[in-house]
Amino acid sequence: MSNGTLILMRHGESEWNASNQFTGWVDVALTDKGRSEAAHAGDLLVEHDLLPELLYTSLLRRAISTAQIALDKADRHWIPVTRDWRLNERHYGALQGLNKADTLEKYGKEQFMLWRRSYDTPPPPIDPESEYSQTHDPRYANLSEVPLTECLKDVVARLIPYFTEVIGNDLRAGKTVLIAAHGNSLRALVKYLDGISDEDIASLNIPTGNPLVYKLDSDLKPTEKAYYLDPEAAEAGAAAVAAQGQK
Amino acid sequence: MSNGTLILMRHGESEWNASNQFTGWVDVALTDKGRSEAAHAGDLLVEHDLLPELLYTSLLRRAISTAQIALDKADRHWIPVTRDWRLNERHYGALQGLNKADTLEKYGKEQFMLWRRSYDTPPPPIDPESEYSQTHDPRYANLSEVPLTECLKDVVARLIPYFTEVIGNDLRAGKTVLIAAHGNSLRALVKYLDGISDEDIASLNIPTGNPLVYKLDSDLKPTEKAYYLDPEAAEAGAAAVAAQGQK
Repeated sequence: MSNGTLILMRHGESEWNASNQFTGWVDVALTDKGRSEAAHAGDLLVEHDLLPELLYTSLLRRAISTAQIALDKADRHWIPVTRDWRLNERHYGALQGLNKADTLEKYGKEQFMLWRRSYDTPPPPIDPESEYSQTHDPRYANLSEVPLTECLKDVVARLIPYFTEVIGNDLRAGKTVLIAAHGNSLRALVKYLDGISDEDIASLNIPTGNPLVYKLDSDLKPTEKAYYLDPEAAEAGAAAVAAQGQK
Repeated sequence: MSNGTLILMRHGESEWNASNQFTGWVDVALTDKGRSEAAHAGDLLVEHDLLPELLYTSLLRRAISTAQIALDKADRHWIPVTRDWRLNERHYGALQGLNKADTLEKYGKEQFMLWRRSYDTPPPPIDPESEYSQTHDPRYANLSEVPLTECLKDVVARLIPYFTEVIGNDLRAGKTVLIAAHGNSLRALVKYLDGISDEDIASLNIPTGNPLVYKLDSDLKPTEKAYYLDPEAAEAGAAAVAAQGQK
């Protein structure tokens, strides 16, 4: 058992980040800006000599592409990869596909922020027959039940056991592990790793394309404070995420 | 045990295909044309309703990128992937990095064709300290010995046991498996699957970006003749490969 290194990477800008729509499990592509952010993240890995030995991604192309672009830059495109739905973004329920500013206007700031940031209030469930539902998506055919909505607490419940039992094995073996995932699945992980309360997690935002590095002991506890590879961009990026929904 | 479907995909044009250099284990990128070929291959998979459930690639980015582009087109970017060095291109020894036309001119057609197409004559070994050697490449750190050259017979020896014992398990389970690899690693596989003699394999060329489909029984024997998804392009492409080395 030796100490592992965990690198968290939020995908770069997606088409629906750019159009200000709730995305969730809808599988949209990166924009050119998103691809640039991913390449920049790869440059940061090289610059800091943090070369991943294993990759975990969600089943969504914006995370898969981000990892592929960043690892290609770092000449690490050949490392073993595992993709798992438990790393997916939070399912945004009936909000999937809606414009964030329109939703804010329609429902008011209180309801909007409750859906976006409360720990245990999910948005209304999506109609399983909606074009933005994943009920009939073959990639989830093995799930006993495909979510129709999720709050952050639901993401914690699906993700943390997978993290501790599967990804944790690689970390306990001393590996450098890259996770390429999403704003809310990474918030769930950071909540667990840093022991953040259900209340305080509301104000935590994770910037895109800026690797966040944890050194973890064999109990998966941080041995030092986690750090972004580009600390200045992290501050600016978190502020931008917090401002979403504003036209 | 049910019948499996095996799809073989040779990577699209690489930078060194375009500059007419021997590549082997040197890890060059796709050209724009190569990326288009990969996307076209993805379109063919969709058109023929052949959707891979599992992906195997070499450790080289031209095969990794080809698979990623094709699968993204087919909305199958999320399937499980295994990367293994046994699917790598034949190691071209001291020829790696050399221009094919210059080599033909320098050594003459007989020697040139012997290195390119004989079953059991490898090119001279590469200097382990050459910039084109993979002796110090971290991705091969687990190999007891990194090759310094290979003939096709060597590729068969490293690849076929991996195919029958690992990939074969998925095929015997009835899966649709995509292998994204290289001209000579795919020639080794086709030699095995179609029972081609050591002599006759010399004249077999595999075109780029055109999926080749096998239906296999539980002994990994073809139950029907393998077919290209774009038969007309296959004929033209194979002729172009055969003509390589000519200026």
